[in-house]
Amino acid sequence: MDRLKVGLLGATGLVGQVFVSLLSRHPWFDLVALSASHQKSGRSYGEVVSWIVERCLPEDVAELRLLNLDPNEFSGVDIIFSALPSDIASHIEPKFAEEGFTVISNSSNLRLDPDIPLIVPEVNPEHLALIKIQRRWRGRIVKNPNCSTAILTMTLKPLMEHGLRRAFVTTLQAVSGAGFAGVPSLAITDNVIPHIPREEDKLSKEPRKILGTLTNSGVREADISIAATTTRVPTRHGHLESVLVELSEELSEEELAECFSRFKGPPQDLSLPTAPANPIVVRRKVDRPQPLLDRTEGGGMSVSVGRISRLGWHGRWYRYVALGHNLVRGAAGNAVLIAELLSYIGNSDSRPF
Amino acid sequence: MDRLKVGLLGATGLVGQVFVSLLSRHPWFDLVALSASHQKSGRSYGEVVSWIVERCLPEDVAELRLLNLDPNEFSGVDIIFSALPSDIASHIEPKFAEEGFTVISNSSNLRLDPDIPLIVPEVNPEHLALIKIQRRWRGRIVKNPNCSTAILTMTLKPLMEHGLRRAFVTTLQAVSGAGFAGVPSLAITDNVIPHIPREEDKLSKEPRKILGTLTNSGVREADISIAATTTRVPTRHGHLESVLVELSEELSEEELAECFSRFKGPPQDLSLPTAPANPIVVRRKVDRPQPLLDRTEGGGMSVSVGRISRLGWHGRWYRYVALGHNLVRGAAGNAVLIAELLSYIGNSDSRPF
Amino acid sequence: MDRLKVGLLGATGLVGQVFVSLLSRHPWFDLVALSASHQKSGRSYGEVVSWIVERCLPEDVAELRLLNLDPNEFSGVDIIFSALPSDIASHIEPKFAEEGFTVISNSSNLRLDPDIPLIVPEVNPEHLALIKIQRRWRGRIVKNPNCSTAILTMTLKPLMEHGLRRAFVTTLQAVSGAGFAGVPSLAITDNVIPHIPREEDKLSKEPRKILGTLTNSGVREADISIAATTTRVPTRHGHLESVLVELSEELSEEELAECFSRFKGPPQDLSLPTAPANPIVVRRKVDRPQPLLDRTEGGGMSVSVGRISRLGWHGRWYRYVALGHNLVRGAAGNAVLIAELLSYIGNSDSRPF
Amino acid sequence: MDRLKVGLLGATGLVGQVFVSLLSRHPWFDLVALSASHQKSGRSYGEVVSWIVERCLPEDVAELRLLNLDPNEFSGVDIIFSALPSDIASHIEPKFAEEGFTVISNSSNLRLDPDIPLIVPEVNPEHLALIKIQRRWRGRIVKNPNCSTAILTMTLKPLMEHGLRRAFVTTLQAVSGAGFAGVPSLAITDNVIPHIPREEDKLSKEPRKILGTLTNSGVREADISIAATTTRVPTRHGHLESVLVELSEELSEEELAECFSRFKGPPQDLSLPTAPANPIVVRRKVDRPQPLLDRTEGGGMSVSVGRISRLGWHGRWYRYVALGHNLVRGAAGNAVLIAELLSYIGNSDSRPF
Repeated sequence: MDRLKVGLLGATGLVGQVFVSLLSRHPWFDLVALSASHQKSGRSYGEVVSWIVERCLPEDVAELRLLNLDPNEFSGVDIIFSALPSDIASHIEPKFAEEGFTVISNSSNLRLDPDIPLIVPEVNPEHLALIKIQRRWRGRIVKNPNCSTAILTMTLKPLMEHGLRRAFVTTLQAVSGAGFAGVPSLAITDNVIPHIPREEDKLSKEPRKILGTLTNSGVREADISIAATTTRVPTRHGHLESVLVELSEELSEEELAECFSRFKGPPQDLSLPTAPANPIVVRRKVDRPQPLLDRTEGGGMSVSVGRISRLGWHGRWYRYVALGHNLVRGAAGNAVLIAELLSYIGNSDSRPF
Repeated sequence: MDRLKVGLLGATGLVGQVFVSLLSRHPWFDLVALSASHQKSGRSYGEVVSWIVERCLPEDVAELRLLNLDPNEFSGVDIIFSALPSDIASHIEPKFAEEGFTVISNSSNLRLDPDIPLIVPEVNPEHLALIKIQRRWRGRIVKNPNCSTAILTMTLKPLMEHGLRRAFVTTLQAVSGAGFAGVPSLAITDNVIPHIPREEDKLSKEPRKILGTLTNSGVREADISIAATTTRVPTRHGHLESVLVELSEELSEEELAECFSRFKGPPQDLSLPTAPANPIVVRRKVDRPQPLLDRTEGGGMSVSVGRISRLGWHGRWYRYVALGHNLVRGAAGNAVLIAELLSYIGNSDSRPF
Repeated sequence: MDRLKVGLLGATGLVGQVFVSLLSRHPWFDLVALSASHQKSGRSYGEVVSWIVERCLPEDVAELRLLNLDPNEFSGVDIIFSALPSDIASHIEPKFAEEGFTVISNSSNLRLDPDIPLIVPEVNPEHLALIKIQRRWRGRIVKNPNCSTAILTMTLKPLMEHGLRRAFVTTLQAVSGAGFAGVPSLAITDNVIPHIPREEDKLSKEPRKILGTLTNSGVREADISIAATTTRVPTRHGHLESVLVELSEELSEEELAECFSRFKGPPQDLSLPTAPANPIVVRRKVDRPQPLLDRTEGGGMSVSVGRISRLGWHGRWYRYVALGHNLVRGAAGNAVLIAELLSYIGNSDSRPF
Repeated sequence: MDRLKVGLLGATGLVGQVFVSLLSRHPWFDLVALSASHQKSGRSYGEVVSWIVERCLPEDVAELRLLNLDPNEFSGVDIIFSALPSDIASHIEPKFAEEGFTVISNSSNLRLDPDIPLIVPEVNPEHLALIKIQRRWRGRIVKNPNCSTAILTMTLKPLMEHGLRRAFVTTLQAVSGAGFAGVPSLAITDNVIPHIPREEDKLSKEPRKILGTLTNSGVREADISIAATTTRVPTRHGHLESVLVELSEELSEEELAECFSRFKGPPQDLSLPTAPANPIVVRRKVDRPQPLLDRTEGGGMSVSVGRISRLGWHGRWYRYVALGHNLVRGAAGNAVLIAELLSYIGNSDSRPF
């Protein structure tokens, strides 16, 4: 397969930096074009960025000149990743799509539009077919879900075949989910903030689409009810989710654990570069998963699940704890995996799903 | 009313220090006798204690000599408070009861025994009548619930009259709940630990007793199902609880808020010294309650409730967030309030409940 | 003494909130006028402020309407406190002074100007006499030092009579020193930042003025050399300073401790309302002072000193650790104490210094 | 070179785990023998250890059975690393030396004894010759310095040739320096503790030996004066040191920076496996070094230096900030580097120093 040229919009922010980190050592993609806000254009990335990702900033990327947010400056690029803030994304991303680019975006705008694939590659890769009915632009836009949703749906997908009916989620989300300066130290040190703007709405709606069924007329939403209480806690990275689910089928705790462990999707079957060997890693120790110890599992692409148990309630109610890296599986990593899947399909005669 | 002499077992630990802080400026009680472990006996409290409570150690208490854990050394004391570790409490507290003392204890042993009152004074003051059937000792033992349970049952009690059926709780508990050295910094900085030993069992059982009905033959457990996932987060004080409840009655969100706000019990009616004006304070701001800002409400005796909403689920499901001070309402303060209620009853002709 | 009417510029920020907290229960001053930025004018303080100070926002202050930053709106006010950002302060404060107001300001502009008193009331109250040579406005401006400087100079002043020659300070400063949103959680959790913009320059220059000698032609700077390395650490409040000093006189460690303990100034002699009984509290325990335990000493107005020892170096070198509350002694509290001293002088026939 | 068999005493503690992590993938050494406390003997390492190092526990090490602290059980092992607590080390390590083993130890006992090499391989490799005069045992003991000392001396060594006279250090040390459970979360969250037991004494004495001159009769201490104020701050790993030095020579700031950058030792010349390419990395950004961003430089073996400046004092005084990983350069990594150097010498005809 020929190497593909990729570009990145919103390269200086926290998610942008994780994109740079993942793309700069990618076996298929060459990161050749970066942009940030207009006032930074023309300067080198290394000069402008306040690099805070633990891995070092690669020198060849540091030397790239920042481009304007103008599709003309990105000519020759095969895939555009976008880590733009939603308000800017909502008018910039369509411009790129209009010029024929494939845009894979982490911004929240458009996610629920019927012609927009909202993808977790292990969960609903077949929804990429929505691209064919996406006719408003010459190119196409594919969306990442909200970070907590990406992590949650990884664990809900294997429950669908056991009759998932309802889920109630309490999230304990890391500060990096709000961007570099999103949470002041004084607001969160020795504290929990039991509210994250718009997050609960996303968590109740996006999974219904992601877990929905692809039909000829689009995606039919899954018939499940999801509600969430979202909180911000003083961790750096890694969203932990305490999940309660009602199923229609009876499962033992061990069966539930196996159901999680066995879960795989096309990214694993195709050995895509960013795909973790195990999308879900079941932790058997009673005090796991923990953000500090488990967030980098599978390079940040695996979701760790623990504390699985059946409630002594009337009905079939279960609880578990899930953990994923909000910047990798919940953002840049998931987008890169989408791009890998799209590239594979484009280069393959057979359809993997 | 004459001032009462009170003693304290386990005075040097974290809960012990909060007891000292509350009792040293109490309008009814004189703290005259303290003990810690045997090897510290004979030394002054001020010399032995590593005082870490924010209020200063009162000088007259600092000068008290630590006694042995021997009932004879506490003669003349009217009420014994116990902040002993459970393993020690299980053989020491009965010795004091045997010698005729009234012991009000924060330890977890005996809590579920049928003849032991397990009390949150606003919630089940009438359960103190169990003392009359408590015949194994000349004195009597009254128990505090588990810290998370005390906070939770304050909010579940007003829901009982609306047909509370089930509750699922995810707790975000502060490190002080594990004692001064209970959680190493390296274990919890930038982390969440999704397990607290034995806590989930307590949270599922204790509320059924506390919310139960007093009958001639003892307490009949409430017919409710409670399950919990408990986590430790990097906050100093204040347990936050994300609660999901199913009721049999229909309530609007505003009705639910008023139901919480109106809740009062005998401690408020009697204006007991440690009783907060409002047992439950409803927070209307969307990002409240927060441990840092709300844990000291009502001197640490009020529970703050926010994020009240009805789920869009089939059935009558609601969620809210509750917050209380684990060392005050969840430990020392609740015990002192029990003692005030007991003293009031003992000095009163009429029964307040 | 008649009660004085006071106003506050910059009332919604962190320092502004501490001013409100101190002034709303002040025995001499009535807080009657508040302002924040222009776009907030006309709205009530309670509606606009994100109150985060631990004490509750007083209701009568909450109801005050925010005024424009216009001296005409403050007519009838006796003293103006300013917690404005320096860039705004530099053109607003002179306007108020021009209209005849006495402005006591926490902003860094003008501090080193020869006609501006830069005051720590225990340290250099006599410098208030500079007001008499301050002729550029009808009113007058008095300045608070930088927060770390206020704390440091409290401990350097008693060393002046023992021949202070040099001081090297390493500060460990709390995040609240940068304002509410000044330090992102992601920047400081599990981290130290060894640089605070412009702080080291202030620490080397301001003490030379504060510790200087008042002459007929102004203040003659003290002949001492001060250098600093400033760091930001993950504490909420309380600046800790590791200090190395060279003296020309020989003192034992005990003499040095007594020199600190005995230190008093006019605020103590006059029993001013905000004056702490002990400006410096010497901590004898080897692991003190600590920000968490000692920052509220004297209502946040005392500086705690510990770890006093003489180095085994050639010459007379000593080290100690100092701690003060950056928002109280380092900001609002010091300004209120200045106002009390000014008011006392204005109402007194005799000069206290 | 043949692979060497190595053993580890004290394998389950925090420093022990870092040893395991470094040794389990070492190109020269095979980790074949582990021990912890006696009560754990016979069980597998994986079963006993609470593994908290970020890298995964290697499976082959997990399967090793823990041995008793008995030299007989370690027969066939070439080098013994010791991460024992000092009180146990003081009687166990000599037993191993008596049986002929080479013990490289991180414990503080014996460090200042005249016949014991106290080594930072880049700083004083020639002191390993003390082994020849070490006659009390058949084998030999080599010591690591205190963690803060190892980091400090890396930066003091290049200053020796410019006439280092005095150094005053304020340390900001991470909690992992006290072991896994050494610092309770409640003691350090939102706090600084300005005292670390015995640390200041070590920092004043050990560098004089390490920077001393090897003579025929042993090491002659360097004629420098060092004093320290040591503090514990809420960081996980990485000790930051604010350093003030007096030199006898005049250097510009740039010369001082180059002096640090150029510093190299035999580990670099010999390309030892654990040697960092740059023992000292000079950071030019004004807000560096930071523990979070710089502690893993050179695999945790490099010391980062920043904030270099000359004071405006009479005389030749300079300040800088140094940062190193306390568990790697300050403990396990330094010991492994010593072992590599010893092994090289043992296998080499020429002497590298």
